[in-house]
Amino acid sequence: MKSKEKSNLPAMLRKARRAGKIYLDYASGSFPNPNAIHELGKEEKRKLEDARTRIARVLGAHSDEIIFTSGATESNNLAILGAPRGHLVTTNIEHASVLESCKQTKKVTYVEVEKNGIVDSKKIRKAFKPNTVLVSVMYANNEIGTIQPIREIAKEIRHFRKRSNLKNSKRSDLGTFPYFHTDATQAVNYLPIKVEKLGVDLMSFNSAKIYGPKGIGALYKKRNVRITPLMWGGNQERGLRPGTENVEGAVALARALEQVEKIKDKEVKRLTKLRDYFLNKLEHSHILKNVGILVNGDWENRLPNNLNISIPKIPSDLLVIELSARGIMASAKSACKSGEETPSHVIAALRGKAADEGSLRFSLGRETSKKDIDRTVKALDEIFKKLEKWYN
Amino acid sequence: MKSKEKSNLPAMLRKARRAGKIYLDYASGSFPNPNAIHELGKEEKRKLEDARTRIARVLGAHSDEIIFTSGATESNNLAILGAPRGHLVTTNIEHASVLESCKQTKKVTYVEVEKNGIVDSKKIRKAFKPNTVLVSVMYANNEIGTIQPIREIAKEIRHFRKRSNLKNSKRSDLGTFPYFHTDATQAVNYLPIKVEKLGVDLMSFNSAKIYGPKGIGALYKKRNVRITPLMWGGNQERGLRPGTENVEGAVALARALEQVEKIKDKEVKRLTKLRDYFLNKLEHSHILKNVGILVNGDWENRLPNNLNISIPKIPSDLLVIELSARGIMASAKSACKSGEETPSHVIAALRGKAADEGSLRFSLGRETSKKDIDRTVKALDEIFKKLEKWYN
Repeated sequence: MKSKEKSNLPAMLRKARRAGKIYLDYASGSFPNPNAIHELGKEEKRKLEDARTRIARVLGAHSDEIIFTSGATESNNLAILGAPRGHLVTTNIEHASVLESCKQTKKVTYVEVEKNGIVDSKKIRKAFKPNTVLVSVMYANNEIGTIQPIREIAKEIRHFRKRSNLKNSKRSDLGTFPYFHTDATQAVNYLPIKVEKLGVDLMSFNSAKIYGPKGIGALYKKRNVRITPLMWGGNQERGLRPGTENVEGAVALARALEQVEKIKDKEVKRLTKLRDYFLNKLEHSHILKNVGILVNGDWENRLPNNLNISIPKIPSDLLVIELSARGIMASAKSACKSGEETPSHVIAALRGKAADEGSLRFSLGRETSKKDIDRTVKALDEIFKKLEKWYN
Repeated sequence: MKSKEKSNLPAMLRKARRAGKIYLDYASGSFPNPNAIHELGKEEKRKLEDARTRIARVLGAHSDEIIFTSGATESNNLAILGAPRGHLVTTNIEHASVLESCKQTKKVTYVEVEKNGIVDSKKIRKAFKPNTVLVSVMYANNEIGTIQPIREIAKEIRHFRKRSNLKNSKRSDLGTFPYFHTDATQAVNYLPIKVEKLGVDLMSFNSAKIYGPKGIGALYKKRNVRITPLMWGGNQERGLRPGTENVEGAVALARALEQVEKIKDKEVKRLTKLRDYFLNKLEHSHILKNVGILVNGDWENRLPNNLNISIPKIPSDLLVIELSARGIMASAKSACKSGEETPSHVIAALRGKAADEGSLRFSLGRETSKKDIDRTVKALDEIFKKLEKWYN
C-alpha cells in the first residue's frame, strides 16, 4: 500500500509525516483528533479554538458561547428542543427546521406575520404566557427575504422579563425567560450580526449559505442560557454537541464569516442596486406588464439579494423549469420544500389561498452581474411569450 | 467584488458559470441544493443518489437503506434514541455515544464483556426481556480492537424473535423486535461489512475513520425497521435526517468506502504482520521485559491495526506525552475521553480497579511502516530507561 497508492491522508498528517512524525492514532481518526493529548491532537485543538475565537469576535460574543454543529437545521433543533420545557412563541413563516422542532413540544403559539411578511413585535409580546420559555423568530426569511424586527422583539422580551410573570414562581431562574432564539442563516451575509446589539440569547447559522463548505454550522448560546443536548456521547462542545469535532469545517466557517464581514457593506450596496434594477426591468418589460407581477414581501425591510414574485395563473415550478432550460437557476420555493405538493407556507401566509400558483425566487450572490440580470429578464420575456397563449 | 476578489464558489458553480449558466439560487446555498428542481439541483441530487447507491452496494444493501448523517455519533444516537420505546441491551465497553444514548432511555441492561474484552452472545440472549426493542453491540472496540461475535448475536436475536416473547401482545409488529444495531465505525476498515451476512438491522459508520473527510457519516437501516428522527425540518433522507444534504461529503464517503473494500484484504494481512512484529519486538526488548507488558483484549479476535497495552505503575498519559515529545502519536484512551480524570471504562471492564495506570493504544494505518514500529519501540525503550528510576 504505502508507496504504491496515492495517500489518502489529510494534508496535516502528510506534512507531519514529512517532518518525521509517526502517527499511530488512526483509531482516533485519519485526521488527528483534537481531544488527543499528543502534539498533533493539541495542534488540532488550537485550530478549533482559534476558529471559535474568530467567530465569537465577529459576533461580539465570548468564544465559549459558540457551539459547532453540523448545520443550521441542527442548530435550530438544538436551540428549540434543547430549551427547558414550556410554551414556545414563533411565527408562521419560519424555516421548516424551526416549525417542525416547535411542533414536537406541542405547546406553541404561531404568531401570524402581516401581509408584508413582517411580524409585529407587539403581537409577539401578546403571545407570551407565564410559562413561555423560548421565542424563536428568524432574522430574515429564506423565501421572501423579509427582515424581522429582532431588536424590537428583544426589547419586548426584556420588558416582559422585568415584570416577570414568573414572580409567583419559586424558580431561581426568575426573569430569565423567555429565551430569544433567532435563525440568522439567511441574514449573516447582509445584516449586522453583533449578538448583544440584536439582543438574542441563541442564534443559528451555517457555513454553506455564506460561501463556506457543507456540513458545518454553529449555534451562538449566551453564557447564562441553559439548554440540553440533542445527542449524547463525548463531552465535546461543553457537553452540548458530542462527536469528534469537524476542525477543518470550523476553520472554514470562521474564514467564511470573516470574509462576509469584510465585504458586507459593499455587497449590500451592490446587490440592492442590482436587485432594484432587476425589478425595474421586469416592471418595464412589455410582456411582463401584460402578465402582471406581484412582489412578495416588504420591499424596504428585505435582504438586498432577494426578489420573490408571484405571477398570476402560471405555476412557478413551470417557470423554474423553463428558466433552467435556458441556463438560469431560480427557485419556486424553499429548496427544502421543493417537490412537495403543498404550496409554500410562507407565500400562503401572505396571500392565503390565492398563492396556488406559487412564487418565483431569485436570490442574487457574489457572482451575480448586471449581464446575468439582463439575460434573465430576456429569458422571462421569451418564456411568457411562449406561455401566454396557454394561460390567457 | 465580482472580478476583483478570488471567487469563493465551489468548483461546480464555477464550472457552471464558465458554461454560461446563471445561478440565482444563492439563498438555497452557495452549493446548488439537491432539492432544487433546476438543472444544477438535479445534478446534485444525482450525485447524492449515486453516492448512496455505491455505499449500499458495498454493504450489500438497498440504496434506500442508507441514511446520511453528520458522523457516527449522530448515527448511533439516531439508531438508539430513534428506536421505539422499550428495554435496551448493550455491553459495558461501547463507545460513549452508545452508552450515553442508552442512558437516556433509563431501561437498559449492560452485559459485561469477558476478561478478554469479548461479549458472550449467550449472555446477550439472557438479557432479553419481552419488551426489549433494541440490542446495540459494537462490531469492534475502539480502544482494544476486540471484535464482537456479531453473527452469533444476530442468530440469538433471530431465535428469540421466532419464539417471540411478544406472542401475548396485540402488536402487529410481532416478532420484529429486538432490532439489532451495531456501531461498525472501527470495523469498516478491516472486517466484512455485508449487512445481510452480519444479520444487523442498523449499522453506524463514518467517513473520518476510513480516510474520508470529517462531518459525514451514515446509518444503514433495514427496510422494515422503524425509527423516528432526532431532528426535525425538511423531508430529506426519507424524513429521518433533515437539513440540506452534504453532497460533497456523501460522495467522499462513497469513495472512501470503495477504496477501503478494494485494499481491505491486503491491508489486513500487512497490518496483522506489522502489529505482531510490534508486539514481538516489545516483548523481546530488554528494558520492556523488566517493566512487564500486559496486552489488553483478546489477541485473536482483534482488529489487525490495534495494539493496546498496560504497563504496571506507569501512568499512560505520561507515556503518550513522552512519545509525543519524540514525534510519535499514540493514545492513552479513547480520544473522546482524553482529558477526563476517570480511567477508561473499557480497560476498567477488563481489569477492574487495577486499571488505574491506564493503557497505551497504538493504532496502525495505511502509512504505517516497519521503520515506524522500530522507531517506536526504540523510543519506548528510552522512555522506560528514563522513567525506571522513578517507578521502581
